[in-house]
Amino acid sequence: MRTIQGIGAAPGYAIGIAKRLGADVAVAERHVAAEEAEREATRLDAAVARAAAELEALRARMAADGRDKEAEIFEAHALLLEDEELVGVARELVAQERLAADAALWRTAEEVAAIIAALDDPYLRERAADVRDVSRRVIRLLQDDAPAGAGDAVGAAEAEGRGAASEKPMSETAASEPGAADAEEDALSPSADAPARGRSSHAGTGASLPYVLIAEDLTPSDTAALDPAEVAGFATAAGGRTSHSAIIARSVGVAAAVGAGEALADIRDGQTVVVDGFSGEIVMNPSPEQLERYRALQERHRRALAENEAYRGRPSVTADGAAVELAANIGSAEDAQQARRHDAEGVGLFRTEFLYMGRSSLPSEDEQYGAYRAAAEAMGSDRPVVIRTMDIGGDKELPLLELPREDNPFLGYRALRISLDRPELFKTQLRAILRAGAHGNVKVMFPMVATIGEWRRAKALLDEARAELLAEGRELGGPMEAGIMIEIPAAAMMADRLAREVDFFSIGTNDLVQYAMAADRMHPKLGALGDPLHPPVLRLIDRVIRAAHAEGKWVGMCGEMAGQPLAVPLLLGMGLDEFSMSSSAILGTRALLSRLSRTELAGLAAAALDLDSADEVRALVAARVPEAAARA
Amino acid sequence: MRTIQGIGAAPGYAIGIAKRLGADVAVAERHVAAEEAEREATRLDAAVARAAAELEALRARMAADGRDKEAEIFEAHALLLEDEELVGVARELVAQERLAADAALWRTAEEVAAIIAALDDPYLRERAADVRDVSRRVIRLLQDDAPAGAGDAVGAAEAEGRGAASEKPMSETAASEPGAADAEEDALSPSADAPARGRSSHAGTGASLPYVLIAEDLTPSDTAALDPAEVAGFATAAGGRTSHSAIIARSVGVAAAVGAGEALADIRDGQTVVVDGFSGEIVMNPSPEQLERYRALQERHRRALAENEAYRGRPSVTADGAAVELAANIGSAEDAQQARRHDAEGVGLFRTEFLYMGRSSLPSEDEQYGAYRAAAEAMGSDRPVVIRTMDIGGDKELPLLELPREDNPFLGYRALRISLDRPELFKTQLRAILRAGAHGNVKVMFPMVATIGEWRRAKALLDEARAELLAEGRELGGPMEAGIMIEIPAAAMMADRLAREVDFFSIGTNDLVQYAMAADRMHPKLGALGDPLHPPVLRLIDRVIRAAHAEGKWVGMCGEMAGQPLAVPLLLGMGLDEFSMSSSAILGTRALLSRLSRTELAGLAAAALDLDSADEVRALVAARVPEAAARA
Repeated sequence: MRTIQGIGAAPGYAIGIAKRLGADVAVAERHVAAEEAEREATRLDAAVARAAAELEALRARMAADGRDKEAEIFEAHALLLEDEELVGVARELVAQERLAADAALWRTAEEVAAIIAALDDPYLRERAADVRDVSRRVIRLLQDDAPAGAGDAVGAAEAEGRGAASEKPMSETAASEPGAADAEEDALSPSADAPARGRSSHAGTGASLPYVLIAEDLTPSDTAALDPAEVAGFATAAGGRTSHSAIIARSVGVAAAVGAGEALADIRDGQTVVVDGFSGEIVMNPSPEQLERYRALQERHRRALAENEAYRGRPSVTADGAAVELAANIGSAEDAQQARRHDAEGVGLFRTEFLYMGRSSLPSEDEQYGAYRAAAEAMGSDRPVVIRTMDIGGDKELPLLELPREDNPFLGYRALRISLDRPELFKTQLRAILRAGAHGNVKVMFPMVATIGEWRRAKALLDEARAELLAEGRELGGPMEAGIMIEIPAAAMMADRLAREVDFFSIGTNDLVQYAMAADRMHPKLGALGDPLHPPVLRLIDRVIRAAHAEGKWVGMCGEMAGQPLAVPLLLGMGLDEFSMSSSAILGTRALLSRLSRTELAGLAAAALDLDSADEVRALVAARVPEAAARA
Repeated sequence: MRTIQGIGAAPGYAIGIAKRLGADVAVAERHVAAEEAEREATRLDAAVARAAAELEALRARMAADGRDKEAEIFEAHALLLEDEELVGVARELVAQERLAADAALWRTAEEVAAIIAALDDPYLRERAADVRDVSRRVIRLLQDDAPAGAGDAVGAAEAEGRGAASEKPMSETAASEPGAADAEEDALSPSADAPARGRSSHAGTGASLPYVLIAEDLTPSDTAALDPAEVAGFATAAGGRTSHSAIIARSVGVAAAVGAGEALADIRDGQTVVVDGFSGEIVMNPSPEQLERYRALQERHRRALAENEAYRGRPSVTADGAAVELAANIGSAEDAQQARRHDAEGVGLFRTEFLYMGRSSLPSEDEQYGAYRAAAEAMGSDRPVVIRTMDIGGDKELPLLELPREDNPFLGYRALRISLDRPELFKTQLRAILRAGAHGNVKVMFPMVATIGEWRRAKALLDEARAELLAEGRELGGPMEAGIMIEIPAAAMMADRLAREVDFFSIGTNDLVQYAMAADRMHPKLGALGDPLHPPVLRLIDRVIRAAHAEGKWVGMCGEMAGQPLAVPLLLGMGLDEFSMSSSAILGTRALLSRLSRTELAGLAAAALDLDSADEVRALVAARVPEAAARA
């Protein structure tokens, strides 16, 4: 047994048989005779057309299943096929160098992907995987349809152990093996055949266990074709929490750990593997005791998910009748739909920076208005949507703004600091938010406020934007609530003064913790300092809640802490009004708090403030609130 | 008129005539006939020997004047002359390529300097200037002693405007011009002739004004040869607060601004220039109003310096009889001597990281013991010396430890975090500090404490080290006080708990401010957020002082705030016990606090905590404590 540390990317526990996904197409740099070049060009165009049709079918099916993220990805892939830089250049290579169609597309795709991968923008960089994925889809179709004479090259590649999917028609492969995905799945997504193919060789050893996929990285096609009945989860060497595979794993509902690094290469096909999608741990050859422990955790997780369903449509109230709001953190209007599906009572944080990232020009007022309005409408007029003005900087780069490189970006020029410096940029966003206010219960929130002066300048620009819109005769809603994030220790220390002026606070614990503890939350060695249960952090939070309530203002929290089972009892005890979290955590949190008494927890919170360490706090909550410990 | 922003590097106001220092030697890549090569080698050795004698004379004079820093630099220069990589390689070039001696040394020096300048260690990088400086000293001697035939090359260089010092003997140059430095100065330091030479051409316009030197950078030789009677100050394009020129300017007592960048190139010889050594501002062609303002500031500064002298040897007490300790921040045992000269009542912060920097191996226990002991002995047995364990990381790199690059070094793996991870390194330092305790009033202090657990682990290692030393039969002092820096907001929030266990606190405002405000203190755009007078920072400080006093512990401050005139009244009012600052600020602070009443200031401090902004705090203190405003 051995444990590899990855990043928990999708909740759940996968226990299964390791199945490695290698490079799933093999392409030799093969030239054709002059007279065959035209035929190759025709084959390329035909394969591109078939791939486009597959992608459209996939998109439609995903959309019908409400899997909007995947639908969006496949739409983007279809657009890539129309890009002349990709297919057009490949066509030229066929004509000019007489390369075989698959070889021409392969070379072009690798070149385009390499250019994208070298870009500054981390969001764009991830698009390199999309280029490779869509190209592989076309190459597989070309190879399935291989003309005579291509056999040698493919055979050579096969000898090196790199995929053999192209040798026989897909349907035959699938039909000949037990446990293969159903025919529709295969027809729609040839990428799915890689895991399916692997099964036969392990049918004897792993009949009772599903697969755990192990790969350098998964393509969107790979992940979208995952069937939870066959695949319990996956672990990848590359990727982060925001990579496509991670996002999709969360929505498909399989456990996943990403970013596990080179150690993953040591896992061999057929080994028993456990993936802990919460902690990111990947256990190779677990001991019987470990297996038993993970099975118990898995069972508990499944029961909790089932039990949580009972809380759909019910109010978020504690056992002693205290009502709180359970809201969702979202990054797009589509996320708002997902938040509704998870029964969120509002949006506590709309991260608008994603509207600005990974594009070549800034989003216009109308475009932003469209996104904010769509989110407001998705939530309906009674559920609040708190829109945070852009939080660029820190770990979120925006090459468009051409900001200088910083020594300490988390302590740098970011969020409201940029907005106040660039009022034209800021007012465009404020106008869009104000206009969206006509279509729902919209509130605006400013990030990274360190001083009262910054809040006042932001509020003045908001008032200015509102006056302009009214003068233009725009339809706006009533007065819009304006609040601030409390994520800088200085703001927490001045919460009493700020509370007099703002309409609400939302505590951003991710940043608050890193500043309060002076520890980069991404730092590989300082994880223990990033714990929001450290008593100094709890003291700051308590201070903020008291200050707000003294002025009759409400306080939310939109950091990760708000959805952590061991933190919820403390936050309830301190009097937090709104808990904003990942949509998927909402029903579970509602179930938890239905068993808690806010009155009783006030004493618990006070006791926690007087402890010495996060470990002591954790032990106290676990001992006094076993319902929370059981969910942690 | 135009203002260039530099970095204030040495206090005071210089008002004078601009005098540019260009590249002060000109060397052509000149070859000699085969039969002359041996003569060139002999000339080189003779010039090196003369330069070494000059350097020794300079070192001795500096040491006699108590200018230990400069003495050390000239000693280092003399050592460079013994380095075979420099003079040895130059000698080979003479023999093998028949280069003239000056050309050979010039080329070698440039190559060695380029290699050093490319190093990772910022401390070592600055040594490139030393290599160039010492080489120029030798080259000037060679050129003064130029054999026939060298005239052409020098003449060509002169036509390009690059120095002509080599054409006539130094003494003639100096004697023929009014206001030249005295003969001893010239004889000792040929580097000084550059400013002297310039004077004649400006004798008409600038007779009543001293010079303000303008240069890309100043060499240690240039700065050490500065005569405050002739040169009022300088401004350089390069350099930072820790560059040699800055350090020396502070000890010579001329105003200086460094790091002013390329804009400095616009200043021409003969222009009137003001250098504000506090703010770093360099004013070109000041208006009559500006000139009048700066003359008034200059006069006030001079009067204050004179007045401060009256406080030498007197106790640090307020007008109402409250005694505090005025201590010095030091970085070496030599600084402790300077602290004594400035009448420091102790050392509030001995920054030990400088013992580790700019070297190829870690300092041994004995070496550290020697340095700590020397500082303790310099202060005497009654004056406390607080030794802080090493604060590596953040902006202080230590390539020796091979730490990985960090995204946010100020929020990274630094100081105590490294020490606790490397107990062998840490215990070596703790043993050295404990042993130094036998020779004075030594206390130990841990930097970057974020949690109570960290303090406990550090204290346990200290106890372990003490037990080991006692078991070895080492002579130690009595029990040593152990305290912590409060520079992380979390520690300030937990000060009540920490105060039960530690012997003292020292508030590190430089870091505390940057974490509390979430603003990198080195960031070019976020200067306003770095102000320690922000009310949230004052609230944290107030909290820490109260917590310490509630447990009967003393509190010091070793951040820059402790010596700021507008901050001193607030800190006094809050009850701070020890103020640790640059040695040169001690007498002025003593003079200020002799006019203040701690009882009255308690109300002022309380009022400041209830204000909204640093500007309001500044205005309040200025209005209520005019004595402080006059010194700010």
